[in-house]
Amino acid sequence: MISLIFFVFCCFFSSQFSHQTLALDFCVADYGAPMSPSGHSCKDPSKVTVNDFVFSGLDVAGNSSKIFKFGFKSASDTELPGLNGLGFSLGRADFEKGAVVPIHAHPDASEISLVLDGKVTFGFIASDNTVYQKSLVKGDVFVVPQGLMHYAFNEGETPAPVIVGFSSSKPSVQLMDLALFRSNLASQVITSSTLIGAEEVKRLKAIFGGSG
Amino acid sequence: MISLIFFVFCCFFSSQFSHQTLALDFCVADYGAPMSPSGHSCKDPSKVTVNDFVFSGLDVAGNSSKIFKFGFKSASDTELPGLNGLGFSLGRADFEKGAVVPIHAHPDASEISLVLDGKVTFGFIASDNTVYQKSLVKGDVFVVPQGLMHYAFNEGETPAPVIVGFSSSKPSVQLMDLALFRSNLASQVITSSTLIGAEEVKRLKAIFGGSG
Amino acid sequence: MISLIFFVFCCFFSSQFSHQTLALDFCVADYGAPMSPSGHSCKDPSKVTVNDFVFSGLDVAGNSSKIFKFGFKSASDTELPGLNGLGFSLGRADFEKGAVVPIHAHPDASEISLVLDGKVTFGFIASDNTVYQKSLVKGDVFVVPQGLMHYAFNEGETPAPVIVGFSSSKPSVQLMDLALFRSNLASQVITSSTLIGAEEVKRLKAIFGGSG
Amino acid sequence: MISLIFFVFCCFFSSQFSHQTLALDFCVADYGAPMSPSGHSCKDPSKVTVNDFVFSGLDVAGNSSKIFKFGFKSASDTELPGLNGLGFSLGRADFEKGAVVPIHAHPDASEISLVLDGKVTFGFIASDNTVYQKSLVKGDVFVVPQGLMHYAFNEGETPAPVIVGFSSSKPSVQLMDLALFRSNLASQVITSSTLIGAEEVKRLKAIFGGSG
Amino acid sequence: MISLIFFVFCCFFSSQFSHQTLALDFCVADYGAPMSPSGHSCKDPSKVTVNDFVFSGLDVAGNSSKIFKFGFKSASDTELPGLNGLGFSLGRADFEKGAVVPIHAHPDASEISLVLDGKVTFGFIASDNTVYQKSLVKGDVFVVPQGLMHYAFNEGETPAPVIVGFSSSKPSVQLMDLALFRSNLASQVITSSTLIGAEEVKRLKAIFGGSG
Amino acid sequence: MISLIFFVFCCFFSSQFSHQTLALDFCVADYGAPMSPSGHSCKDPSKVTVNDFVFSGLDVAGNSSKIFKFGFKSASDTELPGLNGLGFSLGRADFEKGAVVPIHAHPDASEISLVLDGKVTFGFIASDNTVYQKSLVKGDVFVVPQGLMHYAFNEGETPAPVIVGFSSSKPSVQLMDLALFRSNLASQVITSSTLIGAEEVKRLKAIFGGSG
Repeated sequence: MISLIFFVFCCFFSSQFSHQTLALDFCVADYGAPMSPSGHSCKDPSKVTVNDFVFSGLDVAGNSSKIFKFGFKSASDTELPGLNGLGFSLGRADFEKGAVVPIHAHPDASEISLVLDGKVTFGFIASDNTVYQKSLVKGDVFVVPQGLMHYAFNEGETPAPVIVGFSSSKPSVQLMDLALFRSNLASQVITSSTLIGAEEVKRLKAIFGGSG
Repeated sequence: MISLIFFVFCCFFSSQFSHQTLALDFCVADYGAPMSPSGHSCKDPSKVTVNDFVFSGLDVAGNSSKIFKFGFKSASDTELPGLNGLGFSLGRADFEKGAVVPIHAHPDASEISLVLDGKVTFGFIASDNTVYQKSLVKGDVFVVPQGLMHYAFNEGETPAPVIVGFSSSKPSVQLMDLALFRSNLASQVITSSTLIGAEEVKRLKAIFGGSG
Repeated sequence: MISLIFFVFCCFFSSQFSHQTLALDFCVADYGAPMSPSGHSCKDPSKVTVNDFVFSGLDVAGNSSKIFKFGFKSASDTELPGLNGLGFSLGRADFEKGAVVPIHAHPDASEISLVLDGKVTFGFIASDNTVYQKSLVKGDVFVVPQGLMHYAFNEGETPAPVIVGFSSSKPSVQLMDLALFRSNLASQVITSSTLIGAEEVKRLKAIFGGSG
Repeated sequence: MISLIFFVFCCFFSSQFSHQTLALDFCVADYGAPMSPSGHSCKDPSKVTVNDFVFSGLDVAGNSSKIFKFGFKSASDTELPGLNGLGFSLGRADFEKGAVVPIHAHPDASEISLVLDGKVTFGFIASDNTVYQKSLVKGDVFVVPQGLMHYAFNEGETPAPVIVGFSSSKPSVQLMDLALFRSNLASQVITSSTLIGAEEVKRLKAIFGGSG
Repeated sequence: MISLIFFVFCCFFSSQFSHQTLALDFCVADYGAPMSPSGHSCKDPSKVTVNDFVFSGLDVAGNSSKIFKFGFKSASDTELPGLNGLGFSLGRADFEKGAVVPIHAHPDASEISLVLDGKVTFGFIASDNTVYQKSLVKGDVFVVPQGLMHYAFNEGETPAPVIVGFSSSKPSVQLMDLALFRSNLASQVITSSTLIGAEEVKRLKAIFGGSG
Repeated sequence: MISLIFFVFCCFFSSQFSHQTLALDFCVADYGAPMSPSGHSCKDPSKVTVNDFVFSGLDVAGNSSKIFKFGFKSASDTELPGLNGLGFSLGRADFEKGAVVPIHAHPDASEISLVLDGKVTFGFIASDNTVYQKSLVKGDVFVVPQGLMHYAFNEGETPAPVIVGFSSSKPSVQLMDLALFRSNLASQVITSSTLIGAEEVKRLKAIFGGSG
């Protein structure tokens, strides 16, 4: 009796053609195949395992910047192939005492941050130059709409771990300082297009390692 | 004169580069190439024929389940490569006398059903546990919003053929009974996560062929 | 015990704020409120009933054109409010003996047609002017990708009912003859932008009722 | 000089018409206005404050079910109006010792879970009835693709708090047990469409409070 | 110090896995790899240069049709690989004195036209057969919603260059005359599905080069 | 005979219900009604005229900044209600001799620029800090992917008019200098989150008019 049922259900919504055995519930990333605007190619479904949906290590802080005292660890579709095409991801940010997350934007993602401990101020700047800033404590959540410049700093006396969600499987990040002062953007272009003084540009390029 | 016109129009909106002769009106599925989150890769357009847009056989019922007396035949992008990327598909469901479509959901598609003959009751359950159920006859249409559990049964004395549309080129289907009782989900997990009794789980696994 | 469970589950995924009791499983059309690019406003969920998901009458042909011997009946989000926002719909086309569906396009929808009976030829024209045409019989399905000009005609001796699916909750249709010859498009504009002769334009305007 | 600059920049990308002063960086939910398929109407931007982007309380567990020993607290666009239209949200799940999250699905959202402490087993069932299950500890992340049935249970000796992300601003949830046994779905429909025995259905309806 | 910072920032939002060094800011078209419904495959980011984002030649008119005295030059993702996946493109239309753009539609794109010089009348026809027509001069802009039939003609005494934007990276175009009279659509099908007379069809096929 | 045809066609794809006479070909913005995440509410279609699809004035430069010698004029859905929901727009940028477009980003839009005259250098910075910069002349086009920081400057001796397209009906713009130095962002936050020196911040706030 079992085999009869099997015969029937196997054909309800799956193909009778052998070339198409793909389960369409997910598209696990195949890092070796071409990408498209919609994400990575899909891994052969017969090779998908539960480990494609699991990532470990968000209990430990990422390496921290000496200057900004801030570390980040990502669980995006680069680390977690099962996220491919699903349009969201997670990460963990760690603020040491005195930490600052320098001003940056995610060109393709909104962000939601949950403070696990400590006291962190978050802020974003809208395109009408209004500043939306708030001091958060444990259990507080802060939303940054897509593409807007934002920043954060630890204003407490203790380290502050923060869980961060993004509305992209692989969010980009553009840090203003690195874009300006670590790139090879010509100093003259920086001064003329920001009005930051030439001496200051020179000083910042020395800190961040820019050329040009 | 014809050739002059030809020369002009051929360049209005098509590329002058030979590498790009793809007609962009459609992306017929190439089953042998990688898939992406947006669907199958596109077949070489020079090999596309009208048959890529045609499927036959929805006049005949699919194989029917002995238990549920219900059969299904699909015209999705697996059978009909021209549907790739278009975001919808059709199918045909056949209800024998006494047929029941067991409770299931389409994780990625809404559904619309048109009763061609007979008398069929359709129902879906919303996430607030409200039941939306209606008895339909010939010419009646029933909509099930995406992802919600639904069911149907033939309450008449005659077979009932039903045309079904989906808002996906290749809808998934998750049948509750098969997910629980045909899979290798551990019996203890089933009992604890559904509260269905252990004896009942054992009985249903025997019917559906589950292990674990 | 029941009430305890109730208390818990009621708060798992629903709001504690009374202003937000909307079930988000669907957005049934409220025809009296404003529309947006995403569709109709949502009806107060407390007023939604199963009838919002049901439509009757696709068992009977729509009124038929005397000239083209063709009728159509629609189950879109205009007739079936539960389709709002779901991105697909159904309809029924009836071809009398000798019927022709005049050349038209759906600017916002792909189409899939299933012949229930008779013998109907379907065709669409791609943007490289290739004609994809096929003669279909009972049980055959034909796909027309979005926005392309297409036509059909009954080549058999019997009426042919056809079920039609669209990848839009409310597909638009632009019939070439009506756009040109029923509108108030100036005759001179028609002749210069189509090269159809002035006499022919005059004749066709008389048939279809155009002015200008 | 300042005013000159102001004059210029105010007109670069904003309207000269007074009817349109909306900042388009976000669409904060106006709970009193109509919803559409794309979400809530936008609040008057002059009334938006930073508090529209902040939510507190995810440091404390939600009320817990006596049966399942599981609690949930949500930060969706219902609690956090700044999430409207952004397509993602967060929540917090708390597993007491022995807790079970009963089998359920999110019809409109994928899910990502991060275990903050303890030992939790997560699993989902694909539409081909394959079970993807894994035992997670602190720092581990688990992905459930959209619409698929899933479950979890605390297999450790300690409470386990879990942060959950969703790919929807307001995810729906459909709990299988509640859909079947708390609704007014007729017992006969349940038995025929699931094959769960009549006695078992009666028992489960008594537990969950179903009628019909 | 620089190297320390470098070490940290390189890991903030990029993968530690060598297989994934793709910059996700863009997906430049790789014309040699398969396409998907979302567009071209992405070029190896290490081979992307600024030239992938640059196209030259929109200062010069495209080849002009002898009949319609109208030329077009496109900057779509076929000529400009950096446009792949971005969902918009540009082009340049040139109207000689007496030029007419024959009636056509873009099945997958809306259009916006900016008159740089001269005097051009633009019009589109809605699906209710309303004609929206306007005479434009230098600096005027005209919008045509997706998929609708439209036309234009130079009503001035001078050439009129027009910049055209599309809401697609590679807009299709379907010219009514070419679809009917340059294709191999059978003359009988044309006459029956448009009511254009057989003699007129014959005449137009001779002009445009159709067969059948 | 005309009236017969009329009777038929009027019912093919339009509703028999008087509450629904909306043409769905477009959703012209009703500035007085609520917005949603998908855009403005739709204007009553009976009040739509051709002027809703027309905008004038892109032949003349917008007001120019004394500092940056740069002016901009927009044809977005704020000025051109017919663009609502269509997902793209146009604008005109004018570079005087010596003009600089200060570094900025469009959080929700990609950009394509066409130089009509003169010599302009465009550049954008990717999130890996690579600079993509090119000197353009008349007829050249430059693409900036969504959300990335970019800039431009007139390097020629003559004014340079530029036509700009966006992949949004109403693109936001965030100018770095204004976000930092015209807002009320606290100077200490600026210095700590950008490392720009306190004196320089003070100087720039004086130029741009920032407080805090």
